Amino acid sequence: MPGLDEFSLIERLFAPLAARHPGALGLTDDAALIDGPAGQQWAITTDALVAGVHFLPDDPPDLIARKLLRVNLSDLAAMGATPFAVLLATCFPLGVDERWLECFASGLKTDCEIFSVAVIGGDTVATPGPLTLAVTAIGAVAQGSALLRSNARSGDDIWVSGAIGDAAFGLLVAQGRTSGLTPAAVEALLERYRLPSPRTALGPALIGLARAAMDISDGLIGDLDHICKTSGVGAVVEAGRLPLSAAVEAAMAAGFGGVERALTGGDDYELLFTVPPDKAAAIGELGRRLGLRLTKIGQIIDGEGVRVVNANGDPLTLTGSGYRHFGG
Amino acid sequence: MPGLDEFSLIERLFAPLAARHPGALGLTDDAALIDGPAGQQWAITTDALVAGVHFLPDDPPDLIARKLLRVNLSDLAAMGATPFAVLLATCFPLGVDERWLECFASGLKTDCEIFSVAVIGGDTVATPGPLTLAVTAIGAVAQGSALLRSNARSGDDIWVSGAIGDAAFGLLVAQGRTSGLTPAAVEALLERYRLPSPRTALGPALIGLARAAMDISDGLIGDLDHICKTSGVGAVVEAGRLPLSAAVEAAMAAGFGGVERALTGGDDYELLFTVPPDKAAAIGELGRRLGLRLTKIGQIIDGEGVRVVNANGDPLTLTGSGYRHFGG
Repeated sequence: MPGLDEFSLIERLFAPLAARHPGALGLTDDAALIDGPAGQQWAITTDALVAGVHFLPDDPPDLIARKLLRVNLSDLAAMGATPFAVLLATCFPLGVDERWLECFASGLKTDCEIFSVAVIGGDTVATPGPLTLAVTAIGAVAQGSALLRSNARSGDDIWVSGAIGDAAFGLLVAQGRTSGLTPAAVEALLERYRLPSPRTALGPALIGLARAAMDISDGLIGDLDHICKTSGVGAVVEAGRLPLSAAVEAAMAAGFGGVERALTGGDDYELLFTVPPDKAAAIGELGRRLGLRLTKIGQIIDGEGVRVVNANGDPLTLTGSGYRHFGG
Repeated sequence: MPGLDEFSLIERLFAPLAARHPGALGLTDDAALIDGPAGQQWAITTDALVAGVHFLPDDPPDLIARKLLRVNLSDLAAMGATPFAVLLATCFPLGVDERWLECFASGLKTDCEIFSVAVIGGDTVATPGPLTLAVTAIGAVAQGSALLRSNARSGDDIWVSGAIGDAAFGLLVAQGRTSGLTPAAVEALLERYRLPSPRTALGPALIGLARAAMDISDGLIGDLDHICKTSGVGAVVEAGRLPLSAAVEAAMAAGFGGVERALTGGDDYELLFTVPPDKAAAIGELGRRLGLRLTKIGQIIDGEGVRVVNANGDPLTLTGSGYRHFGG
């Protein structure tokens, strides 16, 4: 099965095909950029979700639809773009029934309304395999102002939105582990795993404040490493600063895992961004205005790679550096 | 499994989600339209292909990649748009190997060069199911001049490019039926099934000449019926005028099927377009300039539905009205 090696191979094989278009950003960013009308660019991204890999086959169909949409809107938010349209390629398995489809469409409708997005195209086919869904999402950003992964500079502070690790602990709950958790904590973790909140208001508001940005889909440390690699810098993260929800703290107390799970778990869909220190007050103000927790967790440094330290600056050793589908 | 009923249901469920954006064209056209810079629009389309449904699992990987690209470029050609970029969501199965991936990428590279297209984004995931590929393709067309399905008018002539039915007979050959065919005919049919020729030069050249256009992916009669429905007209096709290749004529002579198979078989990816009669000479000239056979096969009439007639105007009865994946 495709593991890390195959994914690297695919990236290596496909990257040369991007050279013809500068807006492809070398296939290293959250979305590509094409020209829009009068001073605008369109950010455009595609993501595929497979039943049993990216969601559980028995997840409620409306939530599957909404997660599908939201993971793509999260990519656009990470570019600073405001979404307006999606195209949907759906491969439905043998035995899909009318009620399932109606529930799926109703979830899609809910989120199209919440995020002011239209379905402008699509393709529907049958598959003998698992339900497979691909979305292409398009958003608008002012020409030349998209937030790129490659823009981090030594000395920038590293910030994250919301709380980290809820989805990783939520996955354990979705798989049936609940002992030691209150019903409220179970519900909170499940909800965050099944229904991420793409930071569509934060992303565009970071233009002019943040230098580099991306969304956390594969795990904070692994994703931060992408920013480091494309920007040619290193990073230090202070584990104790990581913003944790009450539910994640409860799960940790109940023995579900430690801070490592929060640092390396995927699917949070929070924004990870770097900010020059003189903009810290403005970021604080922005968080208050949006009613969204924004937390400084570390610093961009010269060098390469991501180091995680405790409050004394002593290194913590992590056994995994991120989440890859299947591969590990 | 999804059949005609489920596909209709999905269309009915998704169509309201398109209402927010006029460029969605009600999800009834080959591609959606969004604004581009200075007098341009971008046509954008997405298609999914599943191993065992849209191609045979043992088809050569470079040809799978090229077909994937070409079916999407065909949709853009049907809008009169010139392609420039694609995004690629790939779901690779357990056991995909390095050689397979290299061959797939090499096919993609070949066609990116032939059609001057860049891969500007993508997503690669693993699937426990069959190889599943989704492409989103983007092309440019002058503002307001895209060729729509909804534009056919009573009195228009109906034209098709190339030859019709090669892919439908080619599928039989790919499934192992060759008796009575010369090696050259076998090769020609296989090639046309495996590697369609999107009419990327013809499509943009039809702007100002054709009124409605679409590409033939599900079968000529079924696809023409889409034009009729969205335009609110009917159509008469004269079966004897259908342009057939020598290889298809040989397959018919060898008992593989009759003109019905050519009229209703899918995967030809020729263009089907309607033209006011006073533009017939210009269409003839265009065909000569492009070195591409263009054939008048019938007429748009008042009313609804597609009638197929013989040279005397007597109706032929067809048992199937088009090709649907799996369904029928």
